[in-house]
Amino acid sequence: MLHERISYIPLRDKITDPATAASHINDGGNLFVSGFTSVGYPKLIPVELAKRARAGERLRFNLYSGASTGEDLDDVLAEAGVVVWRRPYISAKLMRKRINQGEILYKDDHLSSTAAQVRSGGLGNVDVAVVEALAINEKGHLIPTMSVGNTPTFVRQADKIIIEMTDACPLDLEGIHDIFIPEDPPYRMPIPIYRASDRIGKPYIEMDSSKVVAIVYSQTRDHCPIFYPPDQVAHDIAAHILDFVEQEIRAGRLSKGLPWQSGVGDVANAVLLGFLENDFFHGLDLYSEVLQDAVLDLLDLGKVRYGSGSALTFSTRGQDRFIKELYRYKERLVLRPVEISNAPEVIRRLGVLSVNTALEIDIYGHVNSSHLWGRNLMNGIGGSGDFVRNGALSFVVTPATTKGGKISCIVPMVTHVDHSEHSVDVVVTEHGLVDLRNRAPHQTAKAIIQRCAASEYRDALMDYFERALRLGGHEPHILAEAFSFHQRFLDTGDMRLV
Amino acid sequence: MLHERISYIPLRDKITDPATAASHINDGGNLFVSGFTSVGYPKLIPVELAKRARAGERLRFNLYSGASTGEDLDDVLAEAGVVVWRRPYISAKLMRKRINQGEILYKDDHLSSTAAQVRSGGLGNVDVAVVEALAINEKGHLIPTMSVGNTPTFVRQADKIIIEMTDACPLDLEGIHDIFIPEDPPYRMPIPIYRASDRIGKPYIEMDSSKVVAIVYSQTRDHCPIFYPPDQVAHDIAAHILDFVEQEIRAGRLSKGLPWQSGVGDVANAVLLGFLENDFFHGLDLYSEVLQDAVLDLLDLGKVRYGSGSALTFSTRGQDRFIKELYRYKERLVLRPVEISNAPEVIRRLGVLSVNTALEIDIYGHVNSSHLWGRNLMNGIGGSGDFVRNGALSFVVTPATTKGGKISCIVPMVTHVDHSEHSVDVVVTEHGLVDLRNRAPHQTAKAIIQRCAASEYRDALMDYFERALRLGGHEPHILAEAFSFHQRFLDTGDMRLV
Repeated sequence: MLHERISYIPLRDKITDPATAASHINDGGNLFVSGFTSVGYPKLIPVELAKRARAGERLRFNLYSGASTGEDLDDVLAEAGVVVWRRPYISAKLMRKRINQGEILYKDDHLSSTAAQVRSGGLGNVDVAVVEALAINEKGHLIPTMSVGNTPTFVRQADKIIIEMTDACPLDLEGIHDIFIPEDPPYRMPIPIYRASDRIGKPYIEMDSSKVVAIVYSQTRDHCPIFYPPDQVAHDIAAHILDFVEQEIRAGRLSKGLPWQSGVGDVANAVLLGFLENDFFHGLDLYSEVLQDAVLDLLDLGKVRYGSGSALTFSTRGQDRFIKELYRYKERLVLRPVEISNAPEVIRRLGVLSVNTALEIDIYGHVNSSHLWGRNLMNGIGGSGDFVRNGALSFVVTPATTKGGKISCIVPMVTHVDHSEHSVDVVVTEHGLVDLRNRAPHQTAKAIIQRCAASEYRDALMDYFERALRLGGHEPHILAEAFSFHQRFLDTGDMRLV
Repeated sequence: MLHERISYIPLRDKITDPATAASHINDGGNLFVSGFTSVGYPKLIPVELAKRARAGERLRFNLYSGASTGEDLDDVLAEAGVVVWRRPYISAKLMRKRINQGEILYKDDHLSSTAAQVRSGGLGNVDVAVVEALAINEKGHLIPTMSVGNTPTFVRQADKIIIEMTDACPLDLEGIHDIFIPEDPPYRMPIPIYRASDRIGKPYIEMDSSKVVAIVYSQTRDHCPIFYPPDQVAHDIAAHILDFVEQEIRAGRLSKGLPWQSGVGDVANAVLLGFLENDFFHGLDLYSEVLQDAVLDLLDLGKVRYGSGSALTFSTRGQDRFIKELYRYKERLVLRPVEISNAPEVIRRLGVLSVNTALEIDIYGHVNSSHLWGRNLMNGIGGSGDFVRNGALSFVVTPATTKGGKISCIVPMVTHVDHSEHSVDVVVTEHGLVDLRNRAPHQTAKAIIQRCAASEYRDALMDYFERALRLGGHEPHILAEAFSFHQRFLDTGDMRLV
């Protein structure tokens, strides 16, 4: 089985067991792994590394990936205490905890920028790349699995390459990938994508096979997310967005046929499902970072014509469904490196309509998508900055409240700004939507409080705003009270006034 | 004199006096004017409009431009009380005051995005465009003066065009402009600039001459800024930046030959003058928004090979010098629409090294470049977002203190975030420089406090940071004290502890 997937015969000699493969990873180095969201990451080598650390070996390294990976990589290594630096994004619980405790160093990066940083040497030498693969072709090049992320650059820059060859994905997946590494300045040319469906590269990752030090056989599936059917909140948010875009198109202010991007998670998935109930939109393109279960439904019904992303982050059920009719889905999907799926140049050229989720949004439209209470990292910004800043129309969405109403996600001032009022176009909650583009800040504040905030918070928000307004200024604030909602929660466990 | 500048004979019939020309502007419309920073804006029509308002006529309109204009446009109209909306940028004092009083509506925009918004109809109908011109060529097309800004799009979209033909600029300026209006999504193609010196358009603004309703003759010069020779602070900031870039190039982490951008103002001008004392750099390209006096010195000495911008914002002396040897400077300079000079796509492709100034920077590298005390608009973000977010290496600079030491420009938390830690690469004051790219937030905080803050503020900043650190989190903050420096200034007129 494993031999069949290695068409380049000399590399068959590199087949070994996980422990031997992992022995190429030493203390003090830089480890670069494949994987984006919870798919396409190596699953066996991390376990071996953790074992060695538990057995008392001194083993500490920096860990870099495409984005988050599964818990069986991130949390296994966080638990083992072997990670010094982690970049560019995380979502695993224990990894998050250790970062917030200051035990693991982390810097929150725009996902589009990591690959270029690696190529410049800015993240140090690429000592070892550990990558999941579907197969190695007859020329010794690598075919990735359900995600691309930064793997093409990691493979190109690596001194040593360890491959986890998996049979959890069918060989027919070959051909879905489009691998293109742009030149770096000052020799960069345009990224020649003009439509979401354009293919500009090769269906495999070019690899110098002499750098492959080990190949192991894996049967472990991705640790897939569970998707829940959309709740009423997600449903209402989706409806507001689709109504608004329809109005803008009908009014002639927005072109028909612009591609959509939708962030990661249940709300983002629900927004896409909203198309199913809508008669206005059909034949859409997606130019997104991650493609989730909703895409399969939309493709089935012809609502989506083509989907472009860097990962297919399906639930287990979605993955089964995708694999069963792979022949049909494959010709309408493409997986790209994240520096291409999230390329500001391409997002702008195509005029992407972007939908991203926030932790909290303030009355002037500044968005916090990464840090709770201004200090605790939740996941990171991921690709939200790439899409919010460059989309032709950028929606940022949040439920109006969370924790059973104890936290208002609309606040006087967000405690951490990831995306500013200058880049956010439209703010949406289940209650309504505010277009910031032609509103001065004080008009935005009134509109967000009245249309987006939960009714139980409207009076307190309006009270803050009106008193701030009396102090004057273009964007009125009372510095001493700007975080009063947050402080109240920290003191009493509830943002509401009693 | 005026006739000579109108080579397209039918348009000579449109020559009239300013009052008659201004009569085409009515109450309740949208007025779009040429101009970028303090050059190339119309100077006669605003005076006529103000006269009519003072005489009791009901006259209110929205005012849009490329960026700021001279006080003889912005402040004259602000004073007259005729402006409802003003976008996308200002710097005139009275205009700022009225905006902060809430009397004039303003939204702070990325300068690269205005033209596309106008073309989409998002800013409403372009009722009248009033533009300064050098000449009208034999085909009836318009040659602009010392700036381009958004004028090409305004002229294309306008119902009526009023031209102020000036003889304050010599006719030999013709040929310096490169006018290219990109298609909008979904039909946009790459902007085909591969080097700062590439020319991709025409040397004139295409104009439908049937829309020209009036042409007036102007002899008024631009209201030029005064540049001061760099002080020690600016000198030291420049030296830190040049040393750092040299090190990065020598270490192989940065390519030689990347173009530079430098923001508007004295510090930005001083950074460029820093090249004069430096032996490492020569034959540079500038891909900038605004070109200031320093560029002339750098061209003279061969330090700069080519300069690209949207405006030539010279001092009166600089303008005289430029005009005197125009034949020599013209072949090494190009003026582009601001959506091209600031195009994220091009800035990324070229790998621009950007230097922009801040009002304040916090210990984690978040930058406020627009609002004082979180509420009072200073100027706006201008193009800083375009360059900070997309530059290959983004420097944000500020003096460590201002107001004689009463205000620290390094603070625990900025009161308004325009550029986040995710996009800012390097923070610089006269005391030193911190590279954020490979530092976790708590490492950044320590480094910024120790290297960038003024000595009299270091203890208070470190005290805040250390106590925040005890509360934990990836980016430690004490919400109740995050603005304590600002509050102290508001209470006592001094951020320092007594």
